Amino acid sequence: MYPESPLIVTFAAGTSGAWFIDSVETVAGAGLPWAPRLAVIEGGAPTPPSLWRLAGTTSNLRYTMAAERAAMGAVTEGLGRAAATRAALIPITKSPAWWAMAQDERRAVFEEQSRHIRIGMEAMPAVARRLHHCRDLGGEFDFLTWFEFAPEHEPAFDRMLASLRATPEWRYVLRETDIRLTRADA
Amino acid sequence: MYPESPLIVTFAAGTSGAWFIDSVETVAGAGLPWAPRLAVIEGGAPTPPSLWRLAGTTSNLRYTMAAERAAMGAVTEGLGRAAATRAALIPITKSPAWWAMAQDERRAVFEEQSRHIRIGMEAMPAVARRLHHCRDLGGEFDFLTWFEFAPEHEPAFDRMLASLRATPEWRYVLRETDIRLTRADA
Repeated sequence: MYPESPLIVTFAAGTSGAWFIDSVETVAGAGLPWAPRLAVIEGGAPTPPSLWRLAGTTSNLRYTMAAERAAMGAVTEGLGRAAATRAALIPITKSPAWWAMAQDERRAVFEEQSRHIRIGMEAMPAVARRLHHCRDLGGEFDFLTWFEFAPEHEPAFDRMLASLRATPEWRYVLRETDIRLTRADA
Repeated sequence: MYPESPLIVTFAAGTSGAWFIDSVETVAGAGLPWAPRLAVIEGGAPTPPSLWRLAGTTSNLRYTMAAERAAMGAVTEGLGRAAATRAALIPITKSPAWWAMAQDERRAVFEEQSRHIRIGMEAMPAVARRLHHCRDLGGEFDFLTWFEFAPEHEPAFDRMLASLRATPEWRYVLRETDIRLTRADA
């Protein structure tokens, strides 16, 4: 599900890039300005001039257990599917209280209380997903999650987001922006 | 035990810095060259000219459970104690097989099989410790662990290292260097 080595990915919002930015909605905390396009640059290649840029890295699993990974693997689709012409970029920052918890405390909120993995799986395989971590990079967000799906699956994606935002885990979300995009060649 | 926000720390080996480098021992994999001194620079301040430099960030707990954190907290000492004139910097890289495991699989090797936390606690409070993560930063190591202790506690520190290196967890260690230091003002 993840490459063996962390992959750095930069999301640069400006006037170039493979994705049109359809909307930028502030869900919580400080927002981000809209720009016409978003470039998704992998591996630290140069980024075009941009209004804002956010960078994160793929990493090892932090909460997912082996049985959950196996269940997810059976329904996981990769990025870049021809039919997946819609995308969402959702940057999130969690609170100091979240990060101060021990591993078992965070896991309990994440899955036993919030069923984060189970809710996410309900939108799979229609929705493909890649998580990027940026807290340890000193970024202004903790996570950047990128989702890709066909236009007809956007309602399922929206239902998944609504379910997640109603969980105990989301009480720890201080900042969240919901950016929707359409592939420029679609 | 950890600051609320990740702290970036750079270890720069050259001719300046608060620590004399007594020895650089290659335990596994490619080594690092010796230099006279090591500077420990916190928060991204400029680093002096150096033969090599390694950077990592403090972060949230990855395996420690709440009860373990409480037990450790009771015997944890901070860095910078006057009597702690000796130090060790131990950079480690783990294998792709380690990183490919799910969270519960890594935790099982780390503590249930290897008793990493329990072994570490046997050297506390004599040995103070700070862990820095660098895999997601694209560094050449995955972890940089910094230890401080008084000279008379170096045997206890060595026993702790020998115990850890004999664990199942250490089968996943591809590269390890053991750098010993003495505070220049000691």
